[in-house]
Amino acid sequence: MSYELGTLMHQRDRKRAAYLFRTKSLGKNSIQENEELLGSFEPDWSKFENVFMEELLPKDISKQGQKRTSQFILEVVDILIDYIRKSNDRSTKVLDFHHPHSLKEALGHCLNLDEDPRDLEQILSDCKETLKYCVKTGHPRFFNQLSTGLDMIAMTGEWLTATANTNMFTYEIAPVFTLMEEIVLTKMREIIGWQEGKGDGIFAPGGAIANLYAVLAARYRICPEVKEEGMRVSPRLIMFTSEHSHFSIKRNAAILGIGTNNCIAIKTDAQGKMIPEDLEKQIEIAKASGGVPFFVSATGGTTVLGTFDPINEICDVAFKHGLWMHVDCAWGGGALLSKQYKKLLNGIERADSVTWNPHKLMGATLQCSGILLKEKGILENCNSLRANYLFQQDKHYDISYDTGDKAIQCGRHNDVFKLWLMWRAKGDIGFESQIDRLMDLSIYLQGQLREREGFEFVIEEPEFLNVSFWYVPKNMRHMPKDSQRDVLLDKVAPKIKAMMMERGTTMVGYQPLGDLPNFFRMVISNPATIPGDIDFLIDEIERLGEEL
Amino acid sequence: MSYELGTLMHQRDRKRAAYLFRTKSLGKNSIQENEELLGSFEPDWSKFENVFMEELLPKDISKQGQKRTSQFILEVVDILIDYIRKSNDRSTKVLDFHHPHSLKEALGHCLNLDEDPRDLEQILSDCKETLKYCVKTGHPRFFNQLSTGLDMIAMTGEWLTATANTNMFTYEIAPVFTLMEEIVLTKMREIIGWQEGKGDGIFAPGGAIANLYAVLAARYRICPEVKEEGMRVSPRLIMFTSEHSHFSIKRNAAILGIGTNNCIAIKTDAQGKMIPEDLEKQIEIAKASGGVPFFVSATGGTTVLGTFDPINEICDVAFKHGLWMHVDCAWGGGALLSKQYKKLLNGIERADSVTWNPHKLMGATLQCSGILLKEKGILENCNSLRANYLFQQDKHYDISYDTGDKAIQCGRHNDVFKLWLMWRAKGDIGFESQIDRLMDLSIYLQGQLREREGFEFVIEEPEFLNVSFWYVPKNMRHMPKDSQRDVLLDKVAPKIKAMMMERGTTMVGYQPLGDLPNFFRMVISNPATIPGDIDFLIDEIERLGEEL
Repeated sequence: MSYELGTLMHQRDRKRAAYLFRTKSLGKNSIQENEELLGSFEPDWSKFENVFMEELLPKDISKQGQKRTSQFILEVVDILIDYIRKSNDRSTKVLDFHHPHSLKEALGHCLNLDEDPRDLEQILSDCKETLKYCVKTGHPRFFNQLSTGLDMIAMTGEWLTATANTNMFTYEIAPVFTLMEEIVLTKMREIIGWQEGKGDGIFAPGGAIANLYAVLAARYRICPEVKEEGMRVSPRLIMFTSEHSHFSIKRNAAILGIGTNNCIAIKTDAQGKMIPEDLEKQIEIAKASGGVPFFVSATGGTTVLGTFDPINEICDVAFKHGLWMHVDCAWGGGALLSKQYKKLLNGIERADSVTWNPHKLMGATLQCSGILLKEKGILENCNSLRANYLFQQDKHYDISYDTGDKAIQCGRHNDVFKLWLMWRAKGDIGFESQIDRLMDLSIYLQGQLREREGFEFVIEEPEFLNVSFWYVPKNMRHMPKDSQRDVLLDKVAPKIKAMMMERGTTMVGYQPLGDLPNFFRMVISNPATIPGDIDFLIDEIERLGEEL
Repeated sequence: MSYELGTLMHQRDRKRAAYLFRTKSLGKNSIQENEELLGSFEPDWSKFENVFMEELLPKDISKQGQKRTSQFILEVVDILIDYIRKSNDRSTKVLDFHHPHSLKEALGHCLNLDEDPRDLEQILSDCKETLKYCVKTGHPRFFNQLSTGLDMIAMTGEWLTATANTNMFTYEIAPVFTLMEEIVLTKMREIIGWQEGKGDGIFAPGGAIANLYAVLAARYRICPEVKEEGMRVSPRLIMFTSEHSHFSIKRNAAILGIGTNNCIAIKTDAQGKMIPEDLEKQIEIAKASGGVPFFVSATGGTTVLGTFDPINEICDVAFKHGLWMHVDCAWGGGALLSKQYKKLLNGIERADSVTWNPHKLMGATLQCSGILLKEKGILENCNSLRANYLFQQDKHYDISYDTGDKAIQCGRHNDVFKLWLMWRAKGDIGFESQIDRLMDLSIYLQGQLREREGFEFVIEEPEFLNVSFWYVPKNMRHMPKDSQRDVLLDKVAPKIKAMMMERGTTMVGYQPLGDLPNFFRMVISNPATIPGDIDFLIDEIERLGEEL
């Protein structure tokens, strides 16, 4: 089988890579020795036909097995570097779209799992085929999600994490990563504004679970006996969040046995911000009906409109009524790193808990979600079962570093290293300039849309990186803005999106919201994006819109 | 340039770094321009001193930026390959232990996060320093956890996952991985024995959360109104699990609002197996007290003793009383792949749900946990909130492939690719021979312990890969086996473990269990391990034990 190699690594780079491994793996440091090896080393790069994984480390620990292992790893890396290069090349597509049935056909038996092993040549080919059909989420013209981009430091950090392959369970098996988690969480709490970064926290598998931790802690504070006796002994607990908040708040009400009907949606104003007066009114109604309000979640950057709830005003209401104050800034938390834009989260230091996902605005690879709490120890009291067969109390080191018993997971992936490494490489100023730059692009996009015909904003003055708008095709522009037009407009974005995906040139999300017909939600979070990419998207929407 | 920690940033470098961030953020890409402005700066691209991440992709897309990116990646890979080689070298230590305070000292300001960025030379040094203090979980003599070993295919699969950096949210952004998840989960259900692999399932962030899904689904089946109304409207739901089961079952009772007091621990026999008669008795007691039994979890490979509950007998009791039958074989699930050992899980096809962690016995990197359910659709009914702003119903492709709304996460890490790739590379027969081989080693270890003086088994005939035993030092062997001896024996394993960690030569877990004093739990799950490594561990325990 002729295996087409990526083009980025020239023969010389390959030789160098091979030489690096060979010399390092033999533990030889002398330059002369290395050069001798480089001179005599003749790599055969298409050598994996009929070679199976059992011939790699850890099974074959011979010199040859070690060499083969490093060659195999370098082949995979070559494929990955090629993908990275293409993802950053604007002349390549963002995706090569196929409907599920046709993608199954295209991949054919490549997808099957059978009795017999495949050779490593096939495994390399599998990697290439997989990447061929991946959506290039790092492409400068991928605008579809809140999480976009591919940061090289985060990525290589994740590679190291996979190689270290340990569990954030105890200090015993993750000493360095445990210390890093403490350092990064402390830093995040300092940035939130809690004194000396004091408090508690943990990395959770995504913002939805981070929010779950917050509701759990709040429930424990008001009704600790629920842990042992269940929700049947508690009063009817009521929680509040805006109608624009992330759906995980409501889902957590379902999971925790609070019930979605006891999660009250607070009205929002024209900008999509929670109305504190409505919160107060709903709290009173809940109390009058015998319920016990205990939790409110303010959103710092809503999913669709990117709106920030007025945290200070919500805190005033919350604390007056004794509620736990949570801020879900999974999306907007990164703004805290910008001197110019941290005002969006004014008052956040008053919160009891904060969800903040560095895998969104800060550009860490998936996943990296922090839940930060003001009160030290509540996580452990709430979640600990003191399983002494897992968390031995008679260890020879300071077991306060064992974080496992405050998590709701047992095994827990190391999500901190990549973020720590990024922070080393960027510094605070690197994150700040990244966020300021994205905001500049958001303002640029807004200006462009205002200058062109046929674009209408969902909210007139977006304050963040979400810019939501309708594209109104020429033949609809004369129509009165009534429900009849809405019916037609509702179909425009899905149609343009479908054509866009078939072409594969760019990707942007759309959705309805309440009674509003489908609109585009442009998200600017990709550090690779430049103004030209934004122009490209607008042009593409216009072009496709006229084909309707 | 030495890799000395933290001494790299001179005033000039900082200035340059800050400058680069600002110019790049203005979209100026020309390195020549930058250099003109900086005057005397002369970069040496063969090294990474004074080179910052802004000079890599995606910021610098020039040929030089691409080359630099690939060089940087190869440098990281070189460090990782070196770590892999050392992890497989028996002459290296498993860990270089430091107490938390002294590790902080050793790493020094290398751990700090500051205003300013570090150059890539420092980042490479950070990676090396981090790995230096990692516990080598892939080392052939690391026996401390259920998850050990480092599989090259799983690891490179995880690297690809990090590079593809997408979210298992919708088919739209994870088309290939969504298909792979369907294929792998179907395969796992076939192996469980469900007809044609039908049913439902999802990958969860660890076994504890997989178990949470099971209890959620069971609660939904018996009391669907809990989703909207909360646990206050439900009868007092009671769940059952053996006293040796994983603590997450009980913790899930706390989380879900059932209450830990309503999670009843069923007695176990001398081998640690749940006693079906006690289950039936406890069900009757619960009913008599007005409770509603709804869920039982049988364990397939307990954490400490590696015991398998009698699934068929438990099913008989469970179904007689209308309970949801769950099998938590997070640890033992891999045994299903062995014709010889799948009998340990006889009856599993009768279960309603199964937790099975390929990151344990099957050797996938962390994390990879499946929750499999017999009933198609229950996950979605239970967890879906039909948030149409996230799961648009008018997409142009078959949206039954969008898995996001049945998850309790929103963003979800791609845990399937590495497992799929391993399965391609090993085939069923590869997994089977791996598991059979580990069982051979377990039998070997048991034989060795029987032949030597001073070793006593916790259970006489371990049936799986956990071998639990006491080491009784010479000066205690004459003592009668009474509580006085137990008090002394309780201190032996922690002391030996502490010395073992200080020496760093091998690592094995210990814990108490019920009234039993601390004992060693040897787990054989590392494909790198050979009989000599087992001899080494026993010798080491004897050697250290005599130093007490």
